[in-house]
Amino acid sequence: MELRPGNLKLRALIAAAPEAIKETIGPMEPIEYENASDEIRAVFDDIKATRGVDDVNNFWKYLANEPRMLAHVWQSLKAIMGEGALDPLTKELIYVAVSITNNCEYCMASHGAAARAKGATEAMMNELYAVVGLANMTNRLVNAYGVPVDEAFKR
Amino acid sequence: MELRPGNLKLRALIAAAPEAIKETIGPMEPIEYENASDEIRAVFDDIKATRGVDDVNNFWKYLANEPRMLAHVWQSLKAIMGEGALDPLTKELIYVAVSITNNCEYCMASHGAAARAKGATEAMMNELYAVVGLANMTNRLVNAYGVPVDEAFKR
Amino acid sequence: MELRPGNLKLRALIAAAPEAIKETIGPMEPIEYENASDEIRAVFDDIKATRGVDDVNNFWKYLANEPRMLAHVWQSLKAIMGEGALDPLTKELIYVAVSITNNCEYCMASHGAAARAKGATEAMMNELYAVVGLANMTNRLVNAYGVPVDEAFKR
Amino acid sequence: MELRPGNLKLRALIAAAPEAIKETIGPMEPIEYENASDEIRAVFDDIKATRGVDDVNNFWKYLANEPRMLAHVWQSLKAIMGEGALDPLTKELIYVAVSITNNCEYCMASHGAAARAKGATEAMMNELYAVVGLANMTNRLVNAYGVPVDEAFKR
Amino acid sequence: MELRPGNLKLRALIAAAPEAIKETIGPMEPIEYENASDEIRAVFDDIKATRGVDDVNNFWKYLANEPRMLAHVWQSLKAIMGEGALDPLTKELIYVAVSITNNCEYCMASHGAAARAKGATEAMMNELYAVVGLANMTNRLVNAYGVPVDEAFKR
Amino acid sequence: MELRPGNLKLRALIAAAPEAIKETIGPMEPIEYENASDEIRAVFDDIKATRGVDDVNNFWKYLANEPRMLAHVWQSLKAIMGEGALDPLTKELIYVAVSITNNCEYCMASHGAAARAKGATEAMMNELYAVVGLANMTNRLVNAYGVPVDEAFKR
Repeated sequence: MELRPGNLKLRALIAAAPEAIKETIGPMEPIEYENASDEIRAVFDDIKATRGVDDVNNFWKYLANEPRMLAHVWQSLKAIMGEGALDPLTKELIYVAVSITNNCEYCMASHGAAARAKGATEAMMNELYAVVGLANMTNRLVNAYGVPVDEAFKR
Repeated sequence: MELRPGNLKLRALIAAAPEAIKETIGPMEPIEYENASDEIRAVFDDIKATRGVDDVNNFWKYLANEPRMLAHVWQSLKAIMGEGALDPLTKELIYVAVSITNNCEYCMASHGAAARAKGATEAMMNELYAVVGLANMTNRLVNAYGVPVDEAFKR
Repeated sequence: MELRPGNLKLRALIAAAPEAIKETIGPMEPIEYENASDEIRAVFDDIKATRGVDDVNNFWKYLANEPRMLAHVWQSLKAIMGEGALDPLTKELIYVAVSITNNCEYCMASHGAAARAKGATEAMMNELYAVVGLANMTNRLVNAYGVPVDEAFKR
Repeated sequence: MELRPGNLKLRALIAAAPEAIKETIGPMEPIEYENASDEIRAVFDDIKATRGVDDVNNFWKYLANEPRMLAHVWQSLKAIMGEGALDPLTKELIYVAVSITNNCEYCMASHGAAARAKGATEAMMNELYAVVGLANMTNRLVNAYGVPVDEAFKR
Repeated sequence: MELRPGNLKLRALIAAAPEAIKETIGPMEPIEYENASDEIRAVFDDIKATRGVDDVNNFWKYLANEPRMLAHVWQSLKAIMGEGALDPLTKELIYVAVSITNNCEYCMASHGAAARAKGATEAMMNELYAVVGLANMTNRLVNAYGVPVDEAFKR
Repeated sequence: MELRPGNLKLRALIAAAPEAIKETIGPMEPIEYENASDEIRAVFDDIKATRGVDDVNNFWKYLANEPRMLAHVWQSLKAIMGEGALDPLTKELIYVAVSITNNCEYCMASHGAAARAKGATEAMMNELYAVVGLANMTNRLVNAYGVPVDEAFKR
């Protein structure tokens, strides 16, 4: 039987549960390969093989708490972030640009490292930061002045 | 004498001013070339010459209400968005990525048009959108799980 | 009996309800004074008296769908936005700055009008927009470079 | 051969292409079932069967421009948004809460409609809006005061 | 006499004030019960009684620096977050969803703890995180493609 | 020859480079005066002279990695943040308001210190925080209810 909001009896049971049981209900811990289910291990193995690394990053170990999302996020990133219409370095730079805008420290660190591993130089990263700063400024100037879209930009 | 918050007398004067005067205090209108000061025209001329266009976009006409920002924003964009460590197309794509994240419709339209003018294809734009969507998702998954930065990403 | 998520029987009842009943479950309409409860009218009356206006703005008519929030939001704004440690015009400018950052068109329009009514000139609004643009830019440059807080700023 | 930023020759070719070709490079149009590839139709068919509807919403028709994302987003939503640890109505309410915070009008409309179809009443929606407003306020009060996490919240 | 921007004489006085006085002008400290005014103690007492706790969380101790907001925020949360059209657990989950989207670490910790205290299991929290991630992704895909609202979602 | 995405040969060279070379490609370090180019020193000198300080803040030392942005950001801030239509204290308060909304800890600390140096008292900062909190709340209530702009706010 599943736990749902409003399912008051089950929640009362939990509230009354011994400490040993309640301790299983809490903040998430990363799941290491040796403690992972076969379902999770299959994703971890695919990440390691695809990227040629010995272990997956912390992001995947935490996301493994929700195996459905682990599989979907990995499948999406695998499909999109490799060679395609845009080259992989450009896509890492875009990832960093979004992460700066949202102030996600982990994502700046991990995708910044990926960008550098794919050839991004200091000069490239500095220009990236400049563009992100400028875009965040002009986005708000546009909001403030309520600038209407030029006819030339419509189709 | 300058108007400052707290300068109550001047504000009282304004409140009591005839309609003809009050009407000069209101929302901003775009400034067209024929009505622009020499200072503004110099920037408009530089934008038109640099981009090889007959007229500047709405963004610049509204921003001309604050001539200091008009000059600074243009100088910054001119310095950063041309050829450099990153090529101009990549920088337009980054601009679009930030504008999507911030939901700035004008900026998506203008920098999307600029990206296409510099060679972005539908396939490239679709991949860009995909990366921006994925980054916004994983940024929040990282927040939610409180994922600590891997040692390998620190230097 | 209250409707709660998980309360599956009640929801089944609703799903099977005749159209006439289902139509009462939908998007919100503004509540005009003549259709308002005494509780809502009391808040509307206080807004009108405090501001010296004939009718309340659309914001209050929509928020009246949740009378508890109507009362709390009004009480908070009444307590904070009048004379205080900061003068009312400064507080309207701050309100506009946040609304530009969040791209809330209604809030820019309503608090922009309030700022002008309290004495904000075009020159002041243009400077406000400039500061908001610059702050949104440097906020992201700080994120990108991971700038540590200077010792001098800590106490 | 794929188009990539920096691939200057291909871009020069595009710039010089006849109008008929250039017109294929532009903003996205929705893809209707009758014009869709088999790959896209398979996803559309699954959405229609799962939800018991005659046609898919605009979101899916636009996303079909990137068939890989169409498939991945649908698979993720199908896996997560149905019955689970949380009931489907609660998940629609959470979806609306995020969409309000990000000011995504389409998403508020579509997931608001989904929530109401699953039993959300006006009273529930009003409480949802109230919670989202309060959370956005206290999130910033926490930022402003730099409130440290209580020991009791750490494990 | 109140301090206002533009009130240059008072500010000059402050700038020239001895260190002992200037030190009273600085970043905020939490206000503990024993140092609190009667007005603040009344709110703290009500929080403790309503929640059945021995002390209030850090949030309230910092917010007590602005007693008007302390009272208003508490009154609003007390009115909205208890039993109502939505059950208290659902409302805590919504609070966490907004806080993840805004990257408010304190708020994720405090409302995450509140959610668990009201019965949220690990499986529920994982689904919550998944929905928040997906919503942040599709919000931006909608922005990018400029998806128009379906007729069926309008009323 | 410049490094550009898509320039695969150069990237292959980097990937194969000895460690000593690769180490020059990495996260940014602050640039101190004694290691700065003449171009950077000129900006640092102007900041120090304008503000009457012995050294520039960390923000400028990091931004010096991109000397073009260092110059442009400083010129913009110098032009806008001094005396003008709004007084300098009001502009610092607006800067803090945006930084709280975006959760930029460094910017809250640096512009909060600047505000206090220009005369902001605890009472002013507390009111500022209150307004920022309220604006973030009502921005989302407006989104949620889809409040249309009143005729009176249009011109």
